[in-house]
Amino acid sequence: MAVQNKGETHWIIPDGFIPPESSGKQTSHESICVLNMQETTANVSVTAYFEDREPLKDIKVQVQAERASHIRTASLEKDGRTIPENVPYAIAVESDVPVVVQYSRLDSTQPELALMSTMAYPLNT
Amino acid sequence: MAVQNKGETHWIIPDGFIPPESSGKQTSHESICVLNMQETTANVSVTAYFEDREPLKDIKVQVQAERASHIRTASLEKDGRTIPENVPYAIAVESDVPVVVQYSRLDSTQPELALMSTMAYPLNT
Amino acid sequence: MAVQNKGETHWIIPDGFIPPESSGKQTSHESICVLNMQETTANVSVTAYFEDREPLKDIKVQVQAERASHIRTASLEKDGRTIPENVPYAIAVESDVPVVVQYSRLDSTQPELALMSTMAYPLNT
Amino acid sequence: MAVQNKGETHWIIPDGFIPPESSGKQTSHESICVLNMQETTANVSVTAYFEDREPLKDIKVQVQAERASHIRTASLEKDGRTIPENVPYAIAVESDVPVVVQYSRLDSTQPELALMSTMAYPLNT
Repeated sequence: MAVQNKGETHWIIPDGFIPPESSGKQTSHESICVLNMQETTANVSVTAYFEDREPLKDIKVQVQAERASHIRTASLEKDGRTIPENVPYAIAVESDVPVVVQYSRLDSTQPELALMSTMAYPLNT
Repeated sequence: MAVQNKGETHWIIPDGFIPPESSGKQTSHESICVLNMQETTANVSVTAYFEDREPLKDIKVQVQAERASHIRTASLEKDGRTIPENVPYAIAVESDVPVVVQYSRLDSTQPELALMSTMAYPLNT
Repeated sequence: MAVQNKGETHWIIPDGFIPPESSGKQTSHESICVLNMQETTANVSVTAYFEDREPLKDIKVQVQAERASHIRTASLEKDGRTIPENVPYAIAVESDVPVVVQYSRLDSTQPELALMSTMAYPLNT
Repeated sequence: MAVQNKGETHWIIPDGFIPPESSGKQTSHESICVLNMQETTANVSVTAYFEDREPLKDIKVQVQAERASHIRTASLEKDGRTIPENVPYAIAVESDVPVVVQYSRLDSTQPELALMSTMAYPLNT
C-alpha cells in the first residue's frame, strides 16, 4: 500500500487565534481539520508557539483510520494547560502516519460571522 | 501534448461542512470547483470521510473537456445517499485525467454572508 | 540572475465568479493579484473557462518590472468580449516570465462585505 | 539538526492591502504571520511592491527562536517610510533561517468584519 501517497506527517499553521467573544447563533472558534486516509489510527501531536512565552508542546490527539476530525483548538489540553483566548500564536501538527491538514476560523465577535480558511503548510521531512 | 502539466489526479479538502441554514438573498453552500483543461472528459470520483461513520465512497461526476465545474456538495448522490448537512467531514477528489481543484464555502446562517476558500491539497500519486 | 527563483509561469484559479450586486461602500469584485519581481515586463495571458461554453482565451495584460498588479477580472476584455457577471468560471494565467499569483474576491451582495482569498495553483511546466 | 526541514527562506504574498477604515470593535488590519521553529533568531526582511512606484525594500524585523510573530503591516517602517493605506501592493518576505509564513486580513470597513487568509507562496531558492 502506497502510504506515502496519502499526505504528509508535519504541517504548519502560522496564524492561530481563538477569538474571545461571540455573538449571534454561532460560537467563535478555530478548527484544525485532519483527514486520515490510512488503515491505521493517526497519533497526532500539536504544538502551540507564542509571541512571548515558551511553546506548549506535544498535546496529543488521535484520528481514527479512514476518519476526518475537526479539532477545536479550545478543546486541546496538556497537563491542565490550554491555549489561551485572544492571543496570537502558531500551530505545528505532527502525525505518525501521513495525513492532510486544513485550518479554519469562524469569528463572530461582531454581530455577523466571518470565516477564513487555508490549507496548512506541509514540511517535507 | 504535455497532459501531465495540466494539474493533478488526486486532491484533498479536510474541512467540509454544509451549513444547515440560510438567510438573506444567498443560500449557504459549498462548492468543489474543478477545472479540466484536457481535451477529454474528466471522470471524477468524490469520497466523503466522516468523524464517526464509514466513508461514502466513489460518488461519480464528470467535467467536460476545457470546461470548469462548480460542483455543489449538496447535489452529490450515490445509491440514494447524500452528504448530510451540519456534519463536519472531509473530501477526496480523484480524476482519471489531471485537473485543478479549489474549495469554497458560502455561509449565510447569520444574516450576512461569510465566504472562505482554499486550493485543495494535491497528493502526488 | 536566477530568474527561475521568482515564481512560476502558469497559474490556475478554479473558482472564479463576478458577483452581480453590491451594497454599502464597497463594490463587489474579484482580483487576480500578480507580482512581477523580474527586471523585465511580464506579458500575461488570461484564459476564462466556463461550464457550458467555449473558453475565452488569451486576454492580454502587462505587469511592469518590479511591480504588483491587482487585475480586476471585470476589466478584462478581448475583441469586445468580457467575462460575464453571475456565472461560475475558472481562470488560467500564463506569463512569459515567472511571477506569483493570488486570487481574492470581495462580495458585498448582502449588506456587509465578505472576503475570500487563496494563492493560485502553480502548474509545473 | 535538520534546519532545512523547518520552512523556507523566501515567501511571497501578491495581494496586500491596508483597509483605510474601521467600524465596530475591531480595527481593520493585515498581518504577516511568521513562525520560527529554529533555535536561533530569524532576521527577516520585508519588501513592498507597488503598482505605480518603486518598491520599498528591506524593512527589517526579527522573530525570536521558537516564537511566532503576527506582524501588522501598518507597523512596518524604514527610514520614516511606511506602507500607505488604501493602496494595492504585494509583499516579499525573506529570512536568514527557514520559517513559515501565512497572510491574513481583517476588514471592518463596513459595519461587520470580514476575514481572509492564505498561506504565502514559498519560492524555492
